[in-house]
Amino acid sequence: MYKININEITNYFIQLQTRISISLEKEEVKKKFTKEIWNRRNVSYGITRIIENGLVFEKAGVNFSFIKGKKLFKSALPNNKNTEGKPFIATGVSSVIHPNNPYVPTAHFNIRFFISENGDWWFGGGFDLTPYYPFKKDCLHWHKTSKNLCDKYKENIYLNYKNWADKYFYIDHRKESRGIGGIFFDYLNKWGFKKTFSFIKDVGNSFILSYIPIIKNRKCNVFTKKEKMFQLYRRGRYVEFNLIYDRGTLFGLQSRGRIESILMSLPPKVIWHYNYHPNKNHKEDKLYSFYLKPKNWI
Amino acid sequence: MYKININEITNYFIQLQTRISISLEKEEVKKKFTKEIWNRRNVSYGITRIIENGLVFEKAGVNFSFIKGKKLFKSALPNNKNTEGKPFIATGVSSVIHPNNPYVPTAHFNIRFFISENGDWWFGGGFDLTPYYPFKKDCLHWHKTSKNLCDKYKENIYLNYKNWADKYFYIDHRKESRGIGGIFFDYLNKWGFKKTFSFIKDVGNSFILSYIPIIKNRKCNVFTKKEKMFQLYRRGRYVEFNLIYDRGTLFGLQSRGRIESILMSLPPKVIWHYNYHPNKNHKEDKLYSFYLKPKNWI
Repeated sequence: MYKININEITNYFIQLQTRISISLEKEEVKKKFTKEIWNRRNVSYGITRIIENGLVFEKAGVNFSFIKGKKLFKSALPNNKNTEGKPFIATGVSSVIHPNNPYVPTAHFNIRFFISENGDWWFGGGFDLTPYYPFKKDCLHWHKTSKNLCDKYKENIYLNYKNWADKYFYIDHRKESRGIGGIFFDYLNKWGFKKTFSFIKDVGNSFILSYIPIIKNRKCNVFTKKEKMFQLYRRGRYVEFNLIYDRGTLFGLQSRGRIESILMSLPPKVIWHYNYHPNKNHKEDKLYSFYLKPKNWI
Repeated sequence: MYKININEITNYFIQLQTRISISLEKEEVKKKFTKEIWNRRNVSYGITRIIENGLVFEKAGVNFSFIKGKKLFKSALPNNKNTEGKPFIATGVSSVIHPNNPYVPTAHFNIRFFISENGDWWFGGGFDLTPYYPFKKDCLHWHKTSKNLCDKYKENIYLNYKNWADKYFYIDHRKESRGIGGIFFDYLNKWGFKKTFSFIKDVGNSFILSYIPIIKNRKCNVFTKKEKMFQLYRRGRYVEFNLIYDRGTLFGLQSRGRIESILMSLPPKVIWHYNYHPNKNHKEDKLYSFYLKPKNWI
């Protein structure tokens, strides 16, 4: 087996964090990313980069973290009983962007690497897009970029990983998808380290290629107060998903990571209306009746 | 064993729902409670009463529900293996009040009755108070009313149930109490049905006696925009607790209850600031350093 150099991975992850931050900053005019470095007992550490109250980004976070843990929890595990309870290292980059303009979708990105004391390792990750007032063209672009990325590796992984995302980014208690999906994968090691790591790097690049053009195209759209309210309402679903289902959040809470970094994914402003349903044939209804139903975009 | 008449319980619960709603409505000037009756396959049903965008109540909900389920989940159970997986009935009243004025605390109340097919039954419930800008006098009044209620039954249950509340209404990932507590109890049946039901009725009355005077005294306090923002920020903790830890919410989601009724507890407007900490010696810091630390109020 390839002898794994964890520094090679963390170096790439930190570079990618910087690249994502710079790409986003270019779209913002008012604010720059802050940068906080934290560490826990000189064992676990992380870099948290945040923009709040920007003109384009109401809240944008890009996290890097490196966690050394004593016992790998079930929630983080593949179906491999050997690894449960073992000491482990987990490192990753994750990003959640909450734009100000409801015509710019919220986006989420994550890649992570796990290795347990007995040498078992795997990568996981993915990204998904959560529009409020979607454009078909943007959805096609989003999924096409993912498909191009996946097709470089194996013909059928795009559909596998796209379906996995549709299943994963699903708010069961609402019977609603969180957004239009993307790709999701976990426990990836079957290609060997070199090829898998190269795929992971392409996932990182692909996120930037997918998302930045959508921001660029929509960030100057004019929007009404009512549309802003709808965005704040829909952000409630994001909170529900992240606090009830999201594995990254659950893993973070269980591994007692830095709470402010874990919860940077929560939207800056949210409203919950009791029993709200959009009017039929309004733009808001189209989101539910068309875009939030998993489909083959390509 | 006392032959249990479930109608006697649901009749009381529905009456109590009305009484809580009327008591709250008397404090509101702009809005009345709406009333929705829902039912699922003529087996489970509920009554949901809500005020939104009131002058005093930004959002106030009082729920009654009656759930017939096929399998009692572990999350709802005492340490009694006989009951797990059995058909059951669960019925209860719960209320969460989010006042507009940050000087009026948020309050939560719940009583519930479970009975499984094999005849095992128990009551559970409690209430807790979540102030933003607390007054010592209000906290004393809140806990004194609970103590008076408990002392009618048994000398030491107040401290037991108060400690249970301190333990239950705790946001582990923040290492913070949700508020100043109250009482919490579960699996209560050791006094036999008659006395236990009488205690439950007193818990219902006690909630009204505890909370209404606090609303009355504080609802006309003048508050600043900054204080309102702090309330919206602190409401984030309420969301985190309810979606991550609250058994009632988890039970509701697992039992596939009516989602809008279950999530009526979520605050109307919330903000999440990254890494916010109040300034030392400010009023906001006093909340963390004094009020959110469990203590013997009496």
